[in-house]
Amino acid sequence: MSVVWLDGSIVDQNEARVLVADRGFTLADGIFETIKAVGSTPFWLAEHLERLKAGAVEIGLTIPFRDDRISDAADRLLAGASEDTRSAIRLTVTRGPTGRGLWPKEAASQATCVLTVASSPAPLPQDFVVCRSTRRNEHSPLSRIKSLGYGDNILARREAIDRGADDAIMLNTQGHVACATVGNVFFRIEGAWVTPQRADGILPGLARRRFIAELGAVERSISSDMIRKSDAGFVCNSLGFTQIKSIDGRALPGDLSAIPVQAVYSP
Amino acid sequence: MSVVWLDGSIVDQNEARVLVADRGFTLADGIFETIKAVGSTPFWLAEHLERLKAGAVEIGLTIPFRDDRISDAADRLLAGASEDTRSAIRLTVTRGPTGRGLWPKEAASQATCVLTVASSPAPLPQDFVVCRSTRRNEHSPLSRIKSLGYGDNILARREAIDRGADDAIMLNTQGHVACATVGNVFFRIEGAWVTPQRADGILPGLARRRFIAELGAVERSISSDMIRKSDAGFVCNSLGFTQIKSIDGRALPGDLSAIPVQAVYSP
Repeated sequence: MSVVWLDGSIVDQNEARVLVADRGFTLADGIFETIKAVGSTPFWLAEHLERLKAGAVEIGLTIPFRDDRISDAADRLLAGASEDTRSAIRLTVTRGPTGRGLWPKEAASQATCVLTVASSPAPLPQDFVVCRSTRRNEHSPLSRIKSLGYGDNILARREAIDRGADDAIMLNTQGHVACATVGNVFFRIEGAWVTPQRADGILPGLARRRFIAELGAVERSISSDMIRKSDAGFVCNSLGFTQIKSIDGRALPGDLSAIPVQAVYSP
Repeated sequence: MSVVWLDGSIVDQNEARVLVADRGFTLADGIFETIKAVGSTPFWLAEHLERLKAGAVEIGLTIPFRDDRISDAADRLLAGASEDTRSAIRLTVTRGPTGRGLWPKEAASQATCVLTVASSPAPLPQDFVVCRSTRRNEHSPLSRIKSLGYGDNILARREAIDRGADDAIMLNTQGHVACATVGNVFFRIEGAWVTPQRADGILPGLARRRFIAELGAVERSISSDMIRKSDAGFVCNSLGFTQIKSIDGRALPGDLSAIPVQAVYSP
């Protein structure tokens, strides 16, 4: 039996439900975090909780449980996992159920908080296209927090698969590179590592921060022309790292074996 | 007891729940319609279903019930309503529950379909500010369908309330007027009615289409400077129409009594 932690209780995943009036379901009014775990150890949990709280401030949401309760919930979901099990915890907080309206006077009486765990998350994609079907909105604060609104990322992923690739590089509305659909991107251009700057509409990833420090990477705007000059690139998120093998059919052959991936992904 | 129609069954609203793995809850992967009803008569149902299907095509979603089943569901929810009861039906379709990932190989086995009904929907807002906190993304196809991702609209509404107004006029990333948070906007400028064009990132509203026809309104890009020259304006959605009394504290005093509101809002 696979279980879920839902508002303080452990529930069978086939019984873990939220009201259809939950604003996470009706309006994408919530945020989440995806947390790597190996065995019974969640990685970077304190930082994930900090980022969650920053996102909650942005959308005016009160997290309904203290950090220690959420940490305890993660421990309960991971209890008994064998030492080499890799898993992904998803922590979701929504504004909970309300009546109609974008901002009804009666605030949600109780935010909803869910933790789920999935073992052996799929590897990150490797062959990319530059997304044509949609753009990331760098003008929205939601592009810099982990909002539930993933519709554009889903469109981009579907487009990539339709075009024979694994995933898409998303551009922002100005045509600058933003991110992959589920991770930050880094490119080596003329020997220097670069990654899109926050103002270009990216989630400030926890792995991203570490890779910037490890590689001395520069945060800047990156045009889609610039990535045609890159000889190497990678995608990273809290779960892992993968080489970008190609973009729009052009290979990025650069050797990434010197990148300190192990050092970055330590608990 | 207030009830909900959920995947073919009538359920008490306090028992109407979806799995936490539902992609409507995890990723805003779905669409909806809001349908006016008076007594037991839903308005413009065929058009709402057409628009829902167009949105479903855009995101590659299969509506799990035929039109006649959905129409029957609406009838069941409205059965017994007194003749003068005004209500709002919300029809939501999501891609249903899946495992992790933006586009997992196992497609959702069953989309989720929910109809809810709320009586006496709140009147539309009247005092507006021009939104500063976020922008509407006209580069995304989702800005032209009724996607579940309402986070930006919620931010805009909250900003308006914080600034002492009722609602916000949202601009797109180029600074053109797009819409209010829950409806289309029309402005009278130098005697002519104008409304933002579809390319500026607006939902093609069913009331909007009717008002364009009734008023001979021109669909075009509207700068935020232009609305400072308007003497009258209104917001409309499928539920109703309301005058824009002010924007950023400037009154729009124009007389709207000649506008054929009754003709537009006929079943």
